[in-house]
Amino acid sequence: MAVQQPPWKIPARQAEEPVLKLFNSLTKSKTEFVPRNGRLVKWYNCGPTVYDASHMGHARNYVTQDILRRVMSDYFGYDVHFVMNITDIDDKIILRARQNHLFDNFRSQTSSLTPELITKVKDAWRSHILDKVSKGLPEDIRPTTENVDAEWPRIVEFTQDKARKAECLKRDEKFDMHLSAATRTFSALSVAQGKLPGQYDREIAHSLLDESRDILSASLDKELKDTVTDPSIFRALAAYWENDFFKDMERLRVRKPDTLTRVTEYVPEVVDFVKRIVENGYGYEHEGSVYFDTAAFDASENHDYAKLEPWSKGNRELLAEGEGALSLNSGKRSASDFALWKASKSGEPSWPSPWGPGRPGWHIECSVMASAIFGDNMDIHSGGIDLAFPHHDNEMAQSEAYHECGAWVNYFIHTGHLHIEGLKMSKSLKNFITIDEILQRFTARQLRLAFLLQLWNAKVDFSESMMIGEVKTIETSFSNFFTTVKAILLADEGQSDGQHHYEDVERDLMNEIYESKLAFRSALCDSFNTPEALKILRDLVSRTNVYINSRGKSLNVGLVEQSARWVGDMLRMFGLGEGEKPELGWGQELEDGANAVNREEVLMPYLRALSSFRDGVRRLAIDKGDDSLKEILKLCDHLRDEGLVPLGVALDDQEDGRALVKLVSPSELIKARDEKRQKLEAQAARKAAAVQADQQKRLAKLEKGRTPPEELFKPPNVPEGQYSQWNEQGIPTADGAGEKLSKSAEKRLQKEWSNQKKLHEDFLTWQKQ
Amino acid sequence: MAVQQPPWKIPARQAEEPVLKLFNSLTKSKTEFVPRNGRLVKWYNCGPTVYDASHMGHARNYVTQDILRRVMSDYFGYDVHFVMNITDIDDKIILRARQNHLFDNFRSQTSSLTPELITKVKDAWRSHILDKVSKGLPEDIRPTTENVDAEWPRIVEFTQDKARKAECLKRDEKFDMHLSAATRTFSALSVAQGKLPGQYDREIAHSLLDESRDILSASLDKELKDTVTDPSIFRALAAYWENDFFKDMERLRVRKPDTLTRVTEYVPEVVDFVKRIVENGYGYEHEGSVYFDTAAFDASENHDYAKLEPWSKGNRELLAEGEGALSLNSGKRSASDFALWKASKSGEPSWPSPWGPGRPGWHIECSVMASAIFGDNMDIHSGGIDLAFPHHDNEMAQSEAYHECGAWVNYFIHTGHLHIEGLKMSKSLKNFITIDEILQRFTARQLRLAFLLQLWNAKVDFSESMMIGEVKTIETSFSNFFTTVKAILLADEGQSDGQHHYEDVERDLMNEIYESKLAFRSALCDSFNTPEALKILRDLVSRTNVYINSRGKSLNVGLVEQSARWVGDMLRMFGLGEGEKPELGWGQELEDGANAVNREEVLMPYLRALSSFRDGVRRLAIDKGDDSLKEILKLCDHLRDEGLVPLGVALDDQEDGRALVKLVSPSELIKARDEKRQKLEAQAARKAAAVQADQQKRLAKLEKGRTPPEELFKPPNVPEGQYSQWNEQGIPTADGAGEKLSKSAEKRLQKEWSNQKKLHEDFLTWQKQ
Repeated sequence: MAVQQPPWKIPARQAEEPVLKLFNSLTKSKTEFVPRNGRLVKWYNCGPTVYDASHMGHARNYVTQDILRRVMSDYFGYDVHFVMNITDIDDKIILRARQNHLFDNFRSQTSSLTPELITKVKDAWRSHILDKVSKGLPEDIRPTTENVDAEWPRIVEFTQDKARKAECLKRDEKFDMHLSAATRTFSALSVAQGKLPGQYDREIAHSLLDESRDILSASLDKELKDTVTDPSIFRALAAYWENDFFKDMERLRVRKPDTLTRVTEYVPEVVDFVKRIVENGYGYEHEGSVYFDTAAFDASENHDYAKLEPWSKGNRELLAEGEGALSLNSGKRSASDFALWKASKSGEPSWPSPWGPGRPGWHIECSVMASAIFGDNMDIHSGGIDLAFPHHDNEMAQSEAYHECGAWVNYFIHTGHLHIEGLKMSKSLKNFITIDEILQRFTARQLRLAFLLQLWNAKVDFSESMMIGEVKTIETSFSNFFTTVKAILLADEGQSDGQHHYEDVERDLMNEIYESKLAFRSALCDSFNTPEALKILRDLVSRTNVYINSRGKSLNVGLVEQSARWVGDMLRMFGLGEGEKPELGWGQELEDGANAVNREEVLMPYLRALSSFRDGVRRLAIDKGDDSLKEILKLCDHLRDEGLVPLGVALDDQEDGRALVKLVSPSELIKARDEKRQKLEAQAARKAAAVQADQQKRLAKLEKGRTPPEELFKPPNVPEGQYSQWNEQGIPTADGAGEKLSKSAEKRLQKEWSNQKKLHEDFLTWQKQ
Repeated sequence: MAVQQPPWKIPARQAEEPVLKLFNSLTKSKTEFVPRNGRLVKWYNCGPTVYDASHMGHARNYVTQDILRRVMSDYFGYDVHFVMNITDIDDKIILRARQNHLFDNFRSQTSSLTPELITKVKDAWRSHILDKVSKGLPEDIRPTTENVDAEWPRIVEFTQDKARKAECLKRDEKFDMHLSAATRTFSALSVAQGKLPGQYDREIAHSLLDESRDILSASLDKELKDTVTDPSIFRALAAYWENDFFKDMERLRVRKPDTLTRVTEYVPEVVDFVKRIVENGYGYEHEGSVYFDTAAFDASENHDYAKLEPWSKGNRELLAEGEGALSLNSGKRSASDFALWKASKSGEPSWPSPWGPGRPGWHIECSVMASAIFGDNMDIHSGGIDLAFPHHDNEMAQSEAYHECGAWVNYFIHTGHLHIEGLKMSKSLKNFITIDEILQRFTARQLRLAFLLQLWNAKVDFSESMMIGEVKTIETSFSNFFTTVKAILLADEGQSDGQHHYEDVERDLMNEIYESKLAFRSALCDSFNTPEALKILRDLVSRTNVYINSRGKSLNVGLVEQSARWVGDMLRMFGLGEGEKPELGWGQELEDGANAVNREEVLMPYLRALSSFRDGVRRLAIDKGDDSLKEILKLCDHLRDEGLVPLGVALDDQEDGRALVKLVSPSELIKARDEKRQKLEAQAARKAAAVQADQQKRLAKLEKGRTPPEELFKPPNVPEGQYSQWNEQGIPTADGAGEKLSKSAEKRLQKEWSNQKKLHEDFLTWQKQ
C-alpha cells in the first residue's frame, strides 16, 4: 500500500467570527444582515432635493451614509451597488425657479426709476406685511389693508422690544425673516422715493429691486406664474444646485454614487408605474390626480401599510409635507391616502398622462427609479430619519403594490437627526450653517471625525465646543502618534544588534493588537458602532505610546509600525485619509517615478483649458476657410504632434470639433505618432515617386517631339539608306533600293508622321515656356 | 394595545456566499479555511537565505505569496499577521563570507607581482582542475597531480567539441562554470607571467587575483579557514544581501512582512528549544551535535513524522541538503534523523550550548521563531514547494515535539516551481535570471501579471514569448480600456438630456457586472484561482467595450465608470496598481497652496506647451492684421483672462510676443484681474463721459450759431426796446431811447457780431452735412 498522509482535522475555533447586524428600521432592532445573493449588496439611498445650497443637515446625512458604505465595501468586503436619486421635480424647486425667472426678467426689463415701479414695490411690500409679517403679530397690532403705511412705524417700534419679538417668533418661526425682508424693502423704497429721475435712474431702480427681491418675487409670482411654461426653467435651477451639491460632497470626501438617477429622466416610467398600481387595485383618479388607496392596500392579505411607522398612519401634519396643495384635497378617500400623480396647476411643469397633464408625486419617484435599477427587491434602503414616514412608508407601499411583493426592502436604515448647539437647525433660529460655511471653520476630516464619534442612527448635537474640544484633541492625538512612529522608522537603520527584541512586553503589545482587531470587528458588526471602534483605535494608540516610552532603545520598531499601520489603515477606511484619491483604472506605469495619481488630478483642468482653446482656434480657422489661416491649422497640428506627445498627452480630434484629451505614457504616444508619421511619409514617398515617374514619362514624350516631322525618316533618325526618296513633307516614297513603297507602308508612315507633327508642336510649345 | 410593526422575516438567500478553500499541502486537497480566532490569521512564511542576489525563483515565490496575502487581507478582509524569517546562518553564507573575507584580505595585502604569488595562484589552479574540473571529464582524460600543466591543452581541445562537452555536463552540471573559471585563471596567469616586475606591478597582481577569484578563494579557504572567527564577518554578508533582497522586493511591490525575524537574533532561544525537545524524548546528542529522533517521534501516539510527504521519509538525497557535512554522520540513530544543533567546525561561527560551541540546524530556526511569535499554533504556513520536505516536515516535527501538540500548522500552502523556457533555472544552464536583470526587460506589473495568469501552486514556465505575447497583450487591453473610459468621463458634461439611458442593454451590462463580481469571488474562494479571476475581469472589459461601441451617444457613462472602477480596483487589489503607496498614518491635511513645488514641477512643461501655442497663434493673428483674425485674438485674451485665471495661471503678454507663465494663487489672480478690469472700465467710463461732455459743448456752440449775426441784436435775441436803430449788418447804433451808442459800446457789439458771424457760418456748414 502506498504511503499516505495522516488524517487532517479542520481547526477548532477558539472564537467564532462575529456576525454583522444592522439596526433595521423595519424591526426597530439590530437584525443579522443577510444579503440575498452572495456578497452583492443592492443599496438605494434617498438623495437631495436640489434647490438651494447644501447645509449641515446634508453633511450629517451624506457623510454618515458614506461612512457606512465604506465600512460595508472596504472593511467587510461586500460588493456594494450604491444607487442615489436626485429629486429635481418638487414644489420648492418649481416655486424657486419660477420666482427667480420672473424676478430676473422683470429686473432686466427695468431701466429707470418710475413712479409705477415704486408703486409696484410698495404694493408688494404692503401685501407682504398683511400676508406674512402679520402672522407673527398680536391681533391688536395687525394692520389692515387701509392702514399698512400708517401702522408700519408702530410695528417697527413694537418689535424692537426683545420679549415682544420672542412672542412673535412663537407665533411664527419665520417672523424674523419676514420682518427683515419688509425692513429692507422699506429702506430701499425710502431711498428711491428721495431721488428725482435723472442720470442714475437705472442703478437706483435695480438696487430697489435687489433689496426687495424676496417680496417682489412673491408678488410677481402671484401675478404672472401662468406665463412660465418652459420646462427648462425648472431643470436649470435643479441642475445648478445638483452640481453645487456634488461639489460640496467632494469636499466632504463623500464618494459618488455608483448609479445616479433623476426624476425628470423617469417621468414616462412613473406614469406606467402609477397605471399598474391603479390596475392592481391600489390607486384611484380624482380630477386629474391619482391617489394611493392606503385602505385597500392595508386590507390586502399580502400587504401592510406603513411598516416603518404604523403608529403614524393618518398623521395629517406629517402627510401634508409630501402632498403640498393636495393635502387638504377632498377627493381623497382617506386622510392617509397620498398623491401618486398630481395634476399640474398653472406655472408648474407638466408631462402627459392618461389622467391629463401632471407631474409625479413625491414618493413615487424613488419607487420607480429604485425598481428600474433593482427590480422587486433590494438589500438596503437608507435615508435620513425625517423621511421614514410618510416618504419611505409610502414608497414601500407603492412598490409592493406595483410588484405585488411582500418585502421590497430587506433592511431600512435611517441616519439620525442633527441639532446645532442643542436646537434643530433652521434659518429662522440663525443656527443654519451651509457646508461651505462649516468648511471654512473646520476641515472635512474634523467634521467626519465628529460624526464618527456618534452612532450613525443617534441624534447628533453639533456644537462649536465639541469640535474645538473633543474632536480636535482626538485628531491631534492620532496625528502626533503617526508623527512619532514615522520619526522612529526614519531613525531605525534596520540593522540587527543580534537580539530579537521580542520579549514579554512585545508579546503583550502584540496581543493588544490582536484584541484590538477582534474588538474593532465586533464593534462594526454591532450595527456599525463607530464611536466604540474609534475608542478601540484610540486605546491602542495610548498603549503603543506607553510601550514606546517604556522601551527606549530596545524598542521593537516593527511592532510599533504594525500598530500604527493598522490604526492608519482603519482611519483611512473610514474616509479620514488625506492626500490619496485612487483614480479609476490601475494607474500609469511610470517611467520617471513621478506620481501618476496626482499628475492626472493636477493636470487635467489645465489640459482642458488648453484643449478647448485649441478647439476654438481650430474651429475659427476651419470656418473661415481663409488661406492665411492654414498656418494656424498647422500650429494646431504641431501642438498635438510635437508639443504634447512627449508630455504624454494625446489629443484625439473628433468630428464635432472637440478633441478628446487623454493622458498616456509618452513613449507609447511617441511610438504611435512615429508609426503614423512613417506611414504617411511612405504614402507621400510613393506619391512623389509616382509624380516623378509621370514627369519622366512626359519629358520622354517631349524629348521624342524634338525631331521635326520632316526629319523623322531621314538619317540619323533612320539608318542611312533605308529610304531613297521623300515627298515635300519628308515622308518616304521609295525604299533604299529605289523601289516605290507599298500603299500600306505609305499609310503607316503617314500616320507616324502625323503623330510626330503633333509631338513636335507640343515640344515647341514647351520650349517657348 | 399600542400599534406594532408587522413581523419581519430574515431575507431568503438566492445564493449562498462561497466559502474560501485553500489547497492544503497537509491533505493535498482543497480544504475549507477556518481561522482559529475570528478573522485573525497568523501566517508564517519561509524567507530567503541571504548570500547572493535574488533571482526569478525568488520573484515567483515572493510575488505569489504577496498576491495571496493581499487577497486574504484586502479582498477577504482577514486581519493577517504576516511573519517572515531571514536565514542568516547557513553553510552557504558561512562559506561565501569566509571566502570573501580571506580573498579581500589577501588582495589588500598584495601590492606587487611576485614569483610566490604566481606560484600560489598556479597551485590553486592545479587543485581546481584536479578537484572540480576533473569531475566532469571522462576517466581516461583526467589529469593527475603530476601532469596537470601538460594535460591542460588536451582538456581545452577535448572540450571544444560540443558533443563531448555535453557529456561532461551530464557528469557534472557545474562543469561549464568550473571550466571557465580555470580558463580565466590560466589566461590571467599567462599575462602575468609575461610581465616583468615594474611600474604596473600592483595593477597586474590585482588583475590576476580578480580573474582567479573563485579558484583562489577556495584554496585560501582550505588553507586559512581556521583563522576566521569574528562572527560579524558572517553577519555582514547576510545583512548586505538582506538589504538587497528587500530592495528587490520593493521594486516588485511585495509588501514588507508585518514581523521580520533573523536566526542570529534567536540563538539562545534555539538552545532552549533543543533542550526541551531532548527533555521530551525526541532528541539525542552525539559529539557536540544534537539530532532529532524521528523514530521516537513517529512512534509516539500523538505524533506523525513527515505529515507533508510521508513517502519521502529517509530519502537521503533530499535530507542531505539540510544536513551539510553532517548528513553522512555515523552517530545518527536513523538515516531519517536530522541535526537540531550542529557542533561548529573551525571557520564556522559558534554559540555556547550545553553540548559545546555550535550553531542551529537549518530546520530548527523556523520552529523557534514562529513559536516565539505565534506559540503552539498558526493558521497558515507558506513557502516554496522545494521546502516541503524535509524542511517543513522537520520543522513541524520539531515544533510538535517541543509543544507536545498535535497540529502546529493548520494550513500549509506551497508555491509551485518556476521553470525558464521549459527548464529548471540554474546558473550552469545559463537561464539564470536575477530580479535586477528581469526588471530591465519587463516591468514589475508585467511580471506580476505573468504570475497571476498561473495558479499559485502550479509550475510556472516563464518564457520570453509568453511575456511579449500574452502578458503584454493583456496589459495593453486593460490600459486601453481605462484610457477610453477616462476620455469618456472627461467628455461627459454630466448634464441631463431628460432621459435616463438605462434600458435593457444597460440592465444586461449591470447584470454582467453583478455576475462578474459573484464569479470573481467564487474564483478566489476556489483556492485563489487568479487565472480564472483575471479571465472574468478581461471578459467584463470586452463586454463593456462592446457596450461602449454599440451605444454611441446614448451611452450610460455611470455604468461604464462602474465597470471600469471595479476592474481597476481588483487589479490594484492584486498589487498591479501604479503610483500609489499609501504612507503610514492618515496623511497630512493640506492647506491650500501647499504642495506648490510639486505642482509647479508637474505643471510647467504643459503650461509652456500651452503658452507657446498661444504665442504662435497670437503672432500670426497680429501679423496678418486681418479683420477676420480679431476673433482669434479675442480667444487668446479669453484664455488668459477667463480660462486660466481660476486655475492660478498668469500669462503676462510681453513685447516680444512671448508671454511669461506664472503659477499664482487663483484667488489673487482673480482679484488682480477684476481690479484691472474695473480700472479699465472706470477709465473707459471717464473717457466716454469726457467725449460726451465735449460733444455737448460743441453742440451748444453750434446751437449758439443758429442765429444769423444780423438777427443777433434784434428781438427776440435781445429784449424788446433795448435798441432803436441798427446799421445794414444789424449792429445797433442807438439805444432804446434813441441815444447814439458810445464808441466803446459800438466796438464791443462789432466784435460780438463778428464772433456770431463765424459761429453762424459753422452752424450752416454743420447743417449742410
